[in-house]
Amino acid sequence: MSNLSVPRDQTNDYSREAAALRRRFIEEHTGANLEHTCKFSFDPAMLPGNIENFTGVVQLPVGFAGPIKVNGEHAQGDFFVPMATTEGTLVASYSRGMMITRAAGGITTTVVDDAMQRAPVYAFANAREARDFGLWVNENFAGIKAAAETTTRSGKLRNIQQFAASKLLYLRFNYTTGDAAGQNMCGKATYVACQWISQNYPGKVSYYFLSGNMDTDKKHSALNTLHSRGKRVVAEVTIPRQLILDRLRTSPEAMYAARRTSQLGGLMAGAVHNGVHPANGIASMFIATGQDEANVAEAHASLVHAEVTPEGDYYYSVTLPSLIVATYGGGTGLATQRECLEVMDCYGTGKAKKLAEIIAATVLCGEISLGAAVVSEEWVSSHDDLGRNRP
Amino acid sequence: MSNLSVPRDQTNDYSREAAALRRRFIEEHTGANLEHTCKFSFDPAMLPGNIENFTGVVQLPVGFAGPIKVNGEHAQGDFFVPMATTEGTLVASYSRGMMITRAAGGITTTVVDDAMQRAPVYAFANAREARDFGLWVNENFAGIKAAAETTTRSGKLRNIQQFAASKLLYLRFNYTTGDAAGQNMCGKATYVACQWISQNYPGKVSYYFLSGNMDTDKKHSALNTLHSRGKRVVAEVTIPRQLILDRLRTSPEAMYAARRTSQLGGLMAGAVHNGVHPANGIASMFIATGQDEANVAEAHASLVHAEVTPEGDYYYSVTLPSLIVATYGGGTGLATQRECLEVMDCYGTGKAKKLAEIIAATVLCGEISLGAAVVSEEWVSSHDDLGRNRP
Amino acid sequence: MSNLSVPRDQTNDYSREAAALRRRFIEEHTGANLEHTCKFSFDPAMLPGNIENFTGVVQLPVGFAGPIKVNGEHAQGDFFVPMATTEGTLVASYSRGMMITRAAGGITTTVVDDAMQRAPVYAFANAREARDFGLWVNENFAGIKAAAETTTRSGKLRNIQQFAASKLLYLRFNYTTGDAAGQNMCGKATYVACQWISQNYPGKVSYYFLSGNMDTDKKHSALNTLHSRGKRVVAEVTIPRQLILDRLRTSPEAMYAARRTSQLGGLMAGAVHNGVHPANGIASMFIATGQDEANVAEAHASLVHAEVTPEGDYYYSVTLPSLIVATYGGGTGLATQRECLEVMDCYGTGKAKKLAEIIAATVLCGEISLGAAVVSEEWVSSHDDLGRNRP
Amino acid sequence: MSNLSVPRDQTNDYSREAAALRRRFIEEHTGANLEHTCKFSFDPAMLPGNIENFTGVVQLPVGFAGPIKVNGEHAQGDFFVPMATTEGTLVASYSRGMMITRAAGGITTTVVDDAMQRAPVYAFANAREARDFGLWVNENFAGIKAAAETTTRSGKLRNIQQFAASKLLYLRFNYTTGDAAGQNMCGKATYVACQWISQNYPGKVSYYFLSGNMDTDKKHSALNTLHSRGKRVVAEVTIPRQLILDRLRTSPEAMYAARRTSQLGGLMAGAVHNGVHPANGIASMFIATGQDEANVAEAHASLVHAEVTPEGDYYYSVTLPSLIVATYGGGTGLATQRECLEVMDCYGTGKAKKLAEIIAATVLCGEISLGAAVVSEEWVSSHDDLGRNRP
Repeated sequence: MSNLSVPRDQTNDYSREAAALRRRFIEEHTGANLEHTCKFSFDPAMLPGNIENFTGVVQLPVGFAGPIKVNGEHAQGDFFVPMATTEGTLVASYSRGMMITRAAGGITTTVVDDAMQRAPVYAFANAREARDFGLWVNENFAGIKAAAETTTRSGKLRNIQQFAASKLLYLRFNYTTGDAAGQNMCGKATYVACQWISQNYPGKVSYYFLSGNMDTDKKHSALNTLHSRGKRVVAEVTIPRQLILDRLRTSPEAMYAARRTSQLGGLMAGAVHNGVHPANGIASMFIATGQDEANVAEAHASLVHAEVTPEGDYYYSVTLPSLIVATYGGGTGLATQRECLEVMDCYGTGKAKKLAEIIAATVLCGEISLGAAVVSEEWVSSHDDLGRNRP
Repeated sequence: MSNLSVPRDQTNDYSREAAALRRRFIEEHTGANLEHTCKFSFDPAMLPGNIENFTGVVQLPVGFAGPIKVNGEHAQGDFFVPMATTEGTLVASYSRGMMITRAAGGITTTVVDDAMQRAPVYAFANAREARDFGLWVNENFAGIKAAAETTTRSGKLRNIQQFAASKLLYLRFNYTTGDAAGQNMCGKATYVACQWISQNYPGKVSYYFLSGNMDTDKKHSALNTLHSRGKRVVAEVTIPRQLILDRLRTSPEAMYAARRTSQLGGLMAGAVHNGVHPANGIASMFIATGQDEANVAEAHASLVHAEVTPEGDYYYSVTLPSLIVATYGGGTGLATQRECLEVMDCYGTGKAKKLAEIIAATVLCGEISLGAAVVSEEWVSSHDDLGRNRP
Repeated sequence: MSNLSVPRDQTNDYSREAAALRRRFIEEHTGANLEHTCKFSFDPAMLPGNIENFTGVVQLPVGFAGPIKVNGEHAQGDFFVPMATTEGTLVASYSRGMMITRAAGGITTTVVDDAMQRAPVYAFANAREARDFGLWVNENFAGIKAAAETTTRSGKLRNIQQFAASKLLYLRFNYTTGDAAGQNMCGKATYVACQWISQNYPGKVSYYFLSGNMDTDKKHSALNTLHSRGKRVVAEVTIPRQLILDRLRTSPEAMYAARRTSQLGGLMAGAVHNGVHPANGIASMFIATGQDEANVAEAHASLVHAEVTPEGDYYYSVTLPSLIVATYGGGTGLATQRECLEVMDCYGTGKAKKLAEIIAATVLCGEISLGAAVVSEEWVSSHDDLGRNRP
Repeated sequence: MSNLSVPRDQTNDYSREAAALRRRFIEEHTGANLEHTCKFSFDPAMLPGNIENFTGVVQLPVGFAGPIKVNGEHAQGDFFVPMATTEGTLVASYSRGMMITRAAGGITTTVVDDAMQRAPVYAFANAREARDFGLWVNENFAGIKAAAETTTRSGKLRNIQQFAASKLLYLRFNYTTGDAAGQNMCGKATYVACQWISQNYPGKVSYYFLSGNMDTDKKHSALNTLHSRGKRVVAEVTIPRQLILDRLRTSPEAMYAARRTSQLGGLMAGAVHNGVHPANGIASMFIATGQDEANVAEAHASLVHAEVTPEGDYYYSVTLPSLIVATYGGGTGLATQRECLEVMDCYGTGKAKKLAEIIAATVLCGEISLGAAVVSEEWVSSHDDLGRNRP
């Protein structure tokens, strides 16, 4: 074998043999030893569609946090939350937040919006022709929708937003995608919709691209925060004052004071959100459950809104405007990922909103826990105790 | 066992036995089966500092892309790049970009800045006292630096930036952290520095928090794009015109036209960067090499600058202003992660900048490849071919 | 008189006498001399609705730039553009841009959107009730619209956008406002709409405010750039290569190279737009024509898109997404302001889009002129020649 | 006369005769009547450096608000504030805020930073050469500073910030500029500094431009909010609870609740600041006092931080990070503008920080007043009473 492509006549591309050939190839060319990387327990035949040049696996430690109590519309009850991470204190810190919010009666979760996008851009001779095209798109929505939906059973084209600049018109196709994350589904549907447009639009298009970056795929944007990408989920809790005094060793007022400085600091820094570390909970759950790990870029956006209530309790909410999750397709069916989903009864159709609710509730727990630690000055010491092998 | 905490008198917390006990606990309470999740090949005794409630592993498929040719100051030569992902076409697409850039002579990489932060906030009676404090901090930098550096061998306090708002002063401590990512190191050093300040500042501080959110940890910010978080790395290549015509089936002009619309679309969308999908390459390499996976939030920021040269070739560069990487500490020493690092000869001390260069070069390859696919309309069809099990 | 309030029994509040009383009061209390400030040529009786405590006028120099050639849908032909400014070179620089674009055949302008907003926020017990309210708002749009429109003849409620976060729902009411800028009209209409909602919504609202800052009045926002505030106008021109070589002493390629660095610099800086100085043209025209001068905050946003064409000419466009203009109401009817509008035949009903087109075309001229000056290194020297009394 | 340029042999360019010739020219070509526009009371001979093609003036109504009580380091005591505006209720609303804050003991103001910028960009063969250049700039700061300062008596080059991207290096020259706004001063000094660099840098520069848009002149940016442009000023007040109950007909808690929703709404909207309408006070004072009116673009940025104190009072602060003001040069010496400055004893050298403090204090008053009006539902009704001629 002269490179990573396994000769088709020699063995099946997704097989233990092919992986072993590649392992040998890598070891020979680099001198490295892939002893552990090549230890996997599943049949590689399930991998087409998930990876190319399959050689082995990363074994990423999984710990369970919780139980978390969720009072959702889709997730109801107690859940153990799988987190794949290498950052010490993370599981412990989220668990602490889960303990507190559970004692507070649990976390209320609500999915308030749901959409996945592909956003082509069309160029014209000038802005007027772009505007004309926009009117035509509105008038021909039914035809565009029909064309798009020929490519998918579960995807539905909900609406097309238009954004005009120069002689360009950016179209943002918003789909519902069932229990799949849906990026590829949207890409394919929009590709066919664009072909339909090419065949039917009587005017002249200079050129178009399937993406003009207003999706905005794999990157945070103000647009996504405004109009959602994936699920838009709100998690809320009101923590009784006494609980905070007793178990978090601080007060609602102190926590709110810290929140206020974080708010202002984040604003001054031009931070993309006013939460503290949603990325931690999201990344570890995404990896554990077979989500597209790059979507942490979009999903880590958050809008925190907190209040000390007139009664002196602490109302805290996190809104995740771009939580992209699937319980079907992608990496969700892989061996360990599916197991982690099943621990929460979140595998398969009809479960995506449930998973979204659990993730949002988990994020809230992490915000409460770290927020309290910063205030009570336990932050560094807990990292010291739990994160021992740090250099 | 009544919860995830294994009784200390029963077994060592980080052992196969403890993991098995937790597995049984989870299986009993949820009905799920953790058959694969509990298959790991390494000794859990290496895990303290990386995770709590260790129960098993996620087995995330790894494929190697490449070889990529890097003409760096720290990374020189050809490398096979480990990518842990569940997104079909990703490894193939990056490989295509590596093939093209290799044919173009390789990618030039440069680390132009390097800093990790912790940013406490101090509150005073009013803005004037905050300003006075700022002057004192400048005058007492030596003392603060000495205090901070008592906590670490490899961390050095480089400078302290000040940002004033209201009666608050935000201090951003910038450290160099050797080959560790350094977030905990910076937290600990700054914690001690703050104690030194408390003991020595003659004025009155109303209160302070160890973080005022101007770090900005685990979230993208304009501040990080301006002043870097982790490594700031530039990857550059000039691809001969003929290569683009022959192998990418498009032209520099067409690629640049697409780039221009992405640029404008991203700007209008309020996207945090003008690249296409750096998050893909970064996330998959981060997971494979034991980086903190949540740092995709910060690291996915990028600044793309491209030009069609007077000769008709295509100059393309990616600047990653917040690439947080380690080759020592954190998850880098775990069994498979270390192996993946060793494939690139990037494990241990003295390798962090090398790894940063390879990641930046990889990101560039992904931008070139997807950019060309969008233009040549191969994007959807390649996902169709390679991403078969999509719903 | 003991303060600035003129006793009602003594004289009419908006009269030369009242102004003189106030002048004397100010002079006595401050020692200043308002000799020039009190020289105005119009009847103060026209001022109610424009100012309180009227004492005199600022005399701001007006120069005319042009003629500019506009090929709009509403503005067609040559116009002399009134600019009120104290910044030397401004009129000269815009005039140079007008000369060039006129030689190029004129500027094509297109109004592609038009809306003014008021955005109340509603708070509920939790996110689910906020979502329920949103559904009710959609179902009851007709009733809300009818209520809103009882307050105005020219304002029409076009649509209501919804943005959810926490237990809050932000509603953005989008109106068309005829030839008025319409902020007050929208405020009043929305106030009544909110009262109608209060009377008709069967659910429980915790509280609401007439503005939750998503208008976003008197401040730039990504939201306004996406969805427009006031007129969204595109100005376009293609300047023949030879013209740039001959008259701007530079080349399309050099201008584009500078644009590219401005683009990247602006992006890295987190600038709100990628133009150079639209604020200059907009502010000076706003003042000259009686627009609300504070709206420069919103109106200075711009999206520049430029291309060197295959023929080597320079296509340049400016999109102004938030150009708030009136030709009726506000300050447009004041003596000098009305005259300045009349110079462009832009006073009164039916002229707002025409004025918007002329302003956008003017902005484009300023971008071209300053852009060329930066490239040809004439920038500093022209400020030297024309800006003589600078310290 | 065939165009707006007055023949030099016929009359002095800045004279009543020249203005009259231009008036006639405009009237003949447009049919408009410039009866009022041509009424000015000062000698046009003072105008060179402020405008070209001088034809007349806009008479913009001026009202005085106040008195405002300022407890600054530069502004101390009561001031009547000149506001030039055409927006009804503006003067009245700011006056109300001044009344309240005066009853509260006055507003504390602090100038915490001061800098004006010009930011050239340098391009190189690659990122490494850009980095080398950056090192050279640091080492040769003294030479660069000396060159820059040959061009100005009052301007001092404080420091040069560096921002790297691709093969470009952006330099941000920060100057103190005495009592002038200093944009032109900085441009000229940096121009000469760049020439010195060209003569002395031993390496090869591909090209450079005097501005790479990181100034960021005439536009808001995150960079300016972080590092200031012009004066960075904080205004603070603590309003006793009873005052708010009695005179603003609302409570600190209600005002804070509204602030919290504005905060969240602004964040979600991607607004450039979390204030309400600083642009109103700034624009009207800028025009009245001869500031560059286009700088409203930068100056309208603000950071509001408010707290209900433990005693139930309302602490409120506004930080203006980019307040560009002059009391010398520019339009400050024009007849009416100088008078308005003199009313506050703010004309001439040594007064710029004083003016900055008064403007910041005024902005705070406007925030308090409108904030309270929104809460107490008086907003629309006060516009109804005072803004009578709205369409």
